[in-house]
Amino acid sequence: MHSFSALSQLFEEKFNVRHFPTHTESLYDPAQYILGIGGKRIRPVCVLLANELFDEINPDAYHAAAAIELFHNFSLIHDDIMDKAPVRRGMQTVHVKYGESTALLAGDVMFVKAYENLNKIQPANLQKVLQLFNVTASQVCEGQQLDMDFEKRDTVSFEDYEKMITLKTSVLVAASLQLGAILGGAGGGNQNHLYKFGKNLGIAFQVQDDYLDAFGNPDKFGKQVGGDILANKKTFLLIHALEAASATAKKELLQLMIDNPADKVEKVLGIFKECKADAWAKELQQNYFTTALKHLEDVAVLSVRKKPLMELAEYLMVRES
Amino acid sequence: MHSFSALSQLFEEKFNVRHFPTHTESLYDPAQYILGIGGKRIRPVCVLLANELFDEINPDAYHAAAAIELFHNFSLIHDDIMDKAPVRRGMQTVHVKYGESTALLAGDVMFVKAYENLNKIQPANLQKVLQLFNVTASQVCEGQQLDMDFEKRDTVSFEDYEKMITLKTSVLVAASLQLGAILGGAGGGNQNHLYKFGKNLGIAFQVQDDYLDAFGNPDKFGKQVGGDILANKKTFLLIHALEAASATAKKELLQLMIDNPADKVEKVLGIFKECKADAWAKELQQNYFTTALKHLEDVAVLSVRKKPLMELAEYLMVRES
Repeated sequence: MHSFSALSQLFEEKFNVRHFPTHTESLYDPAQYILGIGGKRIRPVCVLLANELFDEINPDAYHAAAAIELFHNFSLIHDDIMDKAPVRRGMQTVHVKYGESTALLAGDVMFVKAYENLNKIQPANLQKVLQLFNVTASQVCEGQQLDMDFEKRDTVSFEDYEKMITLKTSVLVAASLQLGAILGGAGGGNQNHLYKFGKNLGIAFQVQDDYLDAFGNPDKFGKQVGGDILANKKTFLLIHALEAASATAKKELLQLMIDNPADKVEKVLGIFKECKADAWAKELQQNYFTTALKHLEDVAVLSVRKKPLMELAEYLMVRES
Repeated sequence: MHSFSALSQLFEEKFNVRHFPTHTESLYDPAQYILGIGGKRIRPVCVLLANELFDEINPDAYHAAAAIELFHNFSLIHDDIMDKAPVRRGMQTVHVKYGESTALLAGDVMFVKAYENLNKIQPANLQKVLQLFNVTASQVCEGQQLDMDFEKRDTVSFEDYEKMITLKTSVLVAASLQLGAILGGAGGGNQNHLYKFGKNLGIAFQVQDDYLDAFGNPDKFGKQVGGDILANKKTFLLIHALEAASATAKKELLQLMIDNPADKVEKVLGIFKECKADAWAKELQQNYFTTALKHLEDVAVLSVRKKPLMELAEYLMVRES
């Protein structure tokens, strides 16, 4: 059994190689570039953690883990193009560094590389693994599309936002865990509990991310505090405030979003606090987290084996609060 | 045994359905849109034709054929974004109709759908099929990248251009044929000959396309005659002319590409004829075509079974001459 950090290191050692040919370097160097600028590798380590719940690590779990990380980076490249994001992990995004067309193609070829890694998996598990991977990949695309659709809408319901977040970010964590379980020979029940553990953990993480963007300690939070507010981003907090605030506060909030005054962040935070969106978000996060832990508890293996996954869950929930 | 047109019809009947869910229609309607605007479906029919060379059609061949057509449309959506192409098959391109971000995602999700179709193939053949599909998909991306790289270069050698065309267009035809052969239980030798038949046929087709763009009958050729010349596109003709023309003619040609005078097409055609690029291209096309047919001949099945593939080859070579 390995701890979360031991598995991170094991994965990093295997993954930290050149994944692409050297020829046609105008295509493959940009693809390799994003893999080299780091990342927490949480998703691939989830594959390994879930796999080791059931048995010693199956070598195929490394292939699935690599595929998941490649897929994640493919989606980052394409999302950054769509979002016109200049920076990723403190470095230039692929499309800024190499141009949009090359970034688009580098993403495509990264996606193929994910499938190349999946195709190294033993035939007995291949079809099941592909099935889950394909469904998840489509869902991630749907989530990104919904996110873009919501930007154009005036209001988004809590349910719609939760669905979008689930598709855009949670299902990949959930599927990573289930893939590890499949390759560990887990039955359907255990697979399902791990999937739901990951899904709820992922949503809890997003609620926390939305919370920290507004109320986080600027010294500890990695991004600009108030960035979502400045960008009028629909977050759990904004969506709740628009539902829960008084008529006057709601009107003021909508006006602030139009006017963008210099003290916008301060004023919006005031409204969030007035309608207790901060306490509501903490409770919401806790609810998802509790649901996640309940599903982990229900996985039918000895509790001691679940310790590394518990560590991961706690690590994700205590970034800053 | 079916003729090319009978198989086209069979494929079209199966393929002409909605491939995507109805929910998240803002993503899936654009993906479905491009599938509905037609196309000759040559690649998927190649899968079926090659499959029927060896036995009755394996139901898995339809899955592989659908995957190939979905992949082809994925690459069209993304290429049209990169090329800023406004029109495809006489209709608005996906990115013009729905926006670039949605088109990018619609392409991605089309790519996933290709893999979903491949995953319906019997486990005994799945790994081999995926292996060929993945290699081919990467090659198509490489070809598109090289094409973009060449646009920025002053000169491109014949060998480089041939390599780019092979990757960008021929390997998909070649792989379609080989996939059909794999699913028909063909041995490595027969697979290889079919691959090379497709590869050479694809290049012959591209030489013809370049030729017709310059020398075709405007009433019969589907595109604007002289379009490549106006766009300074590096074609087999231009590349040959820059190698074979006299020093004076070469200088004039390069100047025409800079100045873009009103009579540019006429003058460039004059230089092409002067250095016999037209006759050279016809001969080049014939050479690739002959090589293609030689490989078809070498496939170890009764000649009578090859008739539909011969029909296809001839159909592709007599568009207009």
